[in-house]
Amino acid sequence: MVDNDAGARGARRRLSVEDRRSELLRACLHLIGTRPWDEVSMANVADAAGVSKPLLYHYFATKSDLYLATVAWAAEELRAATRPDPSLPVGPRMRAALDAHLDWIDDHALAYRAVIQGGISSDSRVHAIVERSRSEVADRLAEAFELSNLTAKQQITCRGWVGFLEAASLEWLNERPITKHELAQLLQHSINALFPHFRQHSRK
Amino acid sequence: MVDNDAGARGARRRLSVEDRRSELLRACLHLIGTRPWDEVSMANVADAAGVSKPLLYHYFATKSDLYLATVAWAAEELRAATRPDPSLPVGPRMRAALDAHLDWIDDHALAYRAVIQGGISSDSRVHAIVERSRSEVADRLAEAFELSNLTAKQQITCRGWVGFLEAASLEWLNERPITKHELAQLLQHSINALFPHFRQHSRK
Repeated sequence: MVDNDAGARGARRRLSVEDRRSELLRACLHLIGTRPWDEVSMANVADAAGVSKPLLYHYFATKSDLYLATVAWAAEELRAATRPDPSLPVGPRMRAALDAHLDWIDDHALAYRAVIQGGISSDSRVHAIVERSRSEVADRLAEAFELSNLTAKQQITCRGWVGFLEAASLEWLNERPITKHELAQLLQHSINALFPHFRQHSRK
Repeated sequence: MVDNDAGARGARRRLSVEDRRSELLRACLHLIGTRPWDEVSMANVADAAGVSKPLLYHYFATKSDLYLATVAWAAEELRAATRPDPSLPVGPRMRAALDAHLDWIDDHALAYRAVIQGGISSDSRVHAIVERSRSEVADRLAEAFELSNLTAKQQITCRGWVGFLEAASLEWLNERPITKHELAQLLQHSINALFPHFRQHSRK
């Protein structure tokens, strides 16, 4: 029954385990935030992914595992999309990362809001993933300014700016009252304003 | 049995309903963040408050109601503590509000972290309280600059700064590596840096 069901619905495309897993996670990510997670069932996710519920359970033993895996996968996607290009000077490099960040949250607005604003992040494992992402953004900011040993004030300011980025992004997502380009400029200005003592970076 | 129990433990002090309620909420606030909320029982809260469990249930029908009431009460406490003093010029007025904010989160560090970082804020009612607080801080910031009609960019920057405040506060609470006074200065500087186009305010 399990095999038949999976076969009937999932046979059209033959995917590797990894590709299938990514497809399930992508489907789940698109469901997160569309309604409270409590109201999303494994059957809903299976339907959205076009697979059987048993197949979904084959990959994720519980709904909680699925959520955790989805957040981890999304964090990795965002990390990859915003990875700084070392061939660029620091100014354009930061700007490219900001643009990629905004493109990503624009495309995944509901899930971004749900996860950042608490969603299920009372789960300490989910919270750890979100915190790791924040920490990495702060580290990249410090790296952009070629700071290897941050003072406590610089560290606090870096983490503060990550909070600025999130809060400004969430506010923007409400009604997108300015263009993404304008928001990227605003964020770039906020970096320039908050880090005047950091190494002056190329504006080119 | 209920009355006896309540009488035996709660009779020493005769409190008004409002004072008793505040006392219960204060006890609950001090428990939030000491361990995952899932692991806190109504009996734990009753014990911490020195009252019987039935008395606690008399005030709060469910553990979820208690949490919600505690967050609402804490938000109101923080709001009252940081209310701007209109007799002060804008610079000292903002600084006094910042100092009061930092004093409050310093005193309630665990609960502040738990609520801001998601705790149970997947509960949409809790989330609404936290969002209202953020919104009010942003409004006060705009008022300090005597801005009645914010442009979209100013609005996004105000909300972004509230994110900066939260993230910087949480980072500071980890190890308190600088003094509260230094953190207040850092926050004041961040306002000055982010809002250069706002009406110049007195530094005195």
